[in-house]
Amino acid sequence: MKKHGLTAPAGFLASGVSAGIKDSGSKDLGMISCPEGAKAAGVFTTNAVVSAAVEVCRENLACARCFGVVVNSGNANACTGKKGLSDARSMCREAGKALKAEESSILAASTGIIGQHLPMQKVRCGIKASADSLSQSQKAGRDFAESILTTDTAAKQYSETVRLSGKDVTIAGAIKGAGMIAPNMATTLCFLTTDVAISKTLLQRALKEAAGESLNKLTVDGHQSTNDTALILASGKAGNAGINKAGSQDYKKFLKTLLSVCRNLTRQMALDAEGASKIFKVAVSGAASKKDARKAARAVANYDLVKCAVNGSDPNWGRIICAIGSCGAKVNVDNITCRLDRLTVFRGGRPVKFDKKRAEEIVSQKEHTISIDLGAGSSSDFCWGCDLSKKYVEINADYHT
Amino acid sequence: MKKHGLTAPAGFLASGVSAGIKDSGSKDLGMISCPEGAKAAGVFTTNAVVSAAVEVCRENLACARCFGVVVNSGNANACTGKKGLSDARSMCREAGKALKAEESSILAASTGIIGQHLPMQKVRCGIKASADSLSQSQKAGRDFAESILTTDTAAKQYSETVRLSGKDVTIAGAIKGAGMIAPNMATTLCFLTTDVAISKTLLQRALKEAAGESLNKLTVDGHQSTNDTALILASGKAGNAGINKAGSQDYKKFLKTLLSVCRNLTRQMALDAEGASKIFKVAVSGAASKKDARKAARAVANYDLVKCAVNGSDPNWGRIICAIGSCGAKVNVDNITCRLDRLTVFRGGRPVKFDKKRAEEIVSQKEHTISIDLGAGSSSDFCWGCDLSKKYVEINADYHT
Repeated sequence: MKKHGLTAPAGFLASGVSAGIKDSGSKDLGMISCPEGAKAAGVFTTNAVVSAAVEVCRENLACARCFGVVVNSGNANACTGKKGLSDARSMCREAGKALKAEESSILAASTGIIGQHLPMQKVRCGIKASADSLSQSQKAGRDFAESILTTDTAAKQYSETVRLSGKDVTIAGAIKGAGMIAPNMATTLCFLTTDVAISKTLLQRALKEAAGESLNKLTVDGHQSTNDTALILASGKAGNAGINKAGSQDYKKFLKTLLSVCRNLTRQMALDAEGASKIFKVAVSGAASKKDARKAARAVANYDLVKCAVNGSDPNWGRIICAIGSCGAKVNVDNITCRLDRLTVFRGGRPVKFDKKRAEEIVSQKEHTISIDLGAGSSSDFCWGCDLSKKYVEINADYHT
Repeated sequence: MKKHGLTAPAGFLASGVSAGIKDSGSKDLGMISCPEGAKAAGVFTTNAVVSAAVEVCRENLACARCFGVVVNSGNANACTGKKGLSDARSMCREAGKALKAEESSILAASTGIIGQHLPMQKVRCGIKASADSLSQSQKAGRDFAESILTTDTAAKQYSETVRLSGKDVTIAGAIKGAGMIAPNMATTLCFLTTDVAISKTLLQRALKEAAGESLNKLTVDGHQSTNDTALILASGKAGNAGINKAGSQDYKKFLKTLLSVCRNLTRQMALDAEGASKIFKVAVSGAASKKDARKAARAVANYDLVKCAVNGSDPNWGRIICAIGSCGAKVNVDNITCRLDRLTVFRGGRPVKFDKKRAEEIVSQKEHTISIDLGAGSSSDFCWGCDLSKKYVEINADYHT
């Protein structure tokens, strides 16, 4: 039986427990342990306001070998000042104690409500309980994946294996998402483990590249969280010839597999976005520049009126053109072509006659693609979005401080 | 009895009829007539994709004297190519015929669904009927205000009178808004009439200044329509000494009154935004630049999570700080202060103890102010926003093409 969780690659244990941070009693504290150490890399939110855990992570990534990760959900520990920072450091210290490792070799992450201090007594007890239940089992991986959730409705994990220099290398990931997701490190929290042998520099490079083409291509509500974090740990236990060159075949194969894992996790996250019932891909081509292509794709995916139309299975291409027109990209409406999957709905600055029933069928699918050719150049880019539902409003009007 | 509509200033007639453009049978075609001509000025959407009427208006504003305005609702005549442009010109021609004026002395506006051709037969009949029912009565002004509505729930009009060089000068306005409203010409459609005597250059200048500090300060969903238009017509019938200098007291008094009328109309529009139950003002101070202040105010007002929190009467300041952090303005979280009306909820990078019940009372008001001092400089700006409700999603998922 294939293990999908973070314990799938050799060299990792995981756990997830209920520490009582959430009132619901759901799991809210998780740990990953790498007893023999791992190389670590991370990418973070570009929000100017970051959580205490993000600050600590950035510092501790400097360590040569990482021995563990500690994560809590139910409290973001963001906008909590010096006490918050000291609490995040305490989390690393306590986890380090439990794992017999230096505080500086532990990474931390938090997610949940902003602006409240962590209940440190509960966190400390949770870390002990979590450390005690660390295991290589598939269940332990799943427990971890469950412990990082907030308004997500299901645990999300995935793994793939690739053959490198005659050895099987596994990459696994667990992710949590829901609201507050936007490009530029768009994940809320994503954890990846792998047994590949690779240099720390290339591990960081691969993570940045893969995140850029997966996590950062998704926007749920255009909002970038204070806590967005993606971390990867590489144990080196696969026994492959170490990857040291970015131009090597092995690096390319590793990157391709990592991207595939990240894209799978991103899609799972999109489908589990707050109140989302559908996802759509916005593929922009014919842009004057890569920047314009990105801007246009993101504008359409973030456009509340488009998102509402998708929710209502309405092939309302007028709103798509409106979003394109106001995004700031160079456009000439007479050269724009717009398609829903393969059905052309707008071309040459005017409506095209199309089968309306077919168009409604396309937009009512669980997934569809909006393709826009700007007719202004040769650059392209894409972005994933999801519909805006009454449920989103309900969740976010009722999730009280 | 004070006449609030566009017929309040001397020199104007108005009307509004049902031409059958809307299936509902509601009024959908309106006209303003100025039999002795008026100076005209206009400001328009900055969306790169504009409606045919916006194109025609931009051309026809060059005329020395304007003799009328023709407006339809129920169809935006946008993204309709050459035929759309020709239809918009026909509207001006038909209205011109009915008013015995040149096509080029008529202004036009459209609002409604994007990407469908106007039912020109109905439009032509509507223009005749509308011309036949032109009147200076208060009812006629109201009929016009009703004829421009789309998803608005009520007609919105207002007028004020100011004393200039011993004469009463009246400024009146009618507005329609609802969805798709964002700064940078944020109105959907706004029509203003006045009997002031003023140079055409100063009329344009006053409109631009007043719109910049009123209509352009409102964001409902961050979206700029293809049709946004504000027009002002000045008949010169008040008998005041003509305003020819921007430095004059009369210009300043006129501008002040115009701004007051525009702000009143903007507030009415905000309160009638799609699904909105509340409005809020975001006042940013202490920004490093005016641009940063504007960016931050707009980011908070556009932030779906803040809008949902206001909907749920939740004093969720964490989302406000998150919006500030991701808006791109220069900030140092340790210097940020955030208040809800006069209640401080965040200061010095950490939560402040505050009366939660009082905070909830503030956010549950029909209007409240979110004040944010960025602590990074001395520039300030503000923006109005409204809450995001389930009703907004309902309206925009169900408003089918």
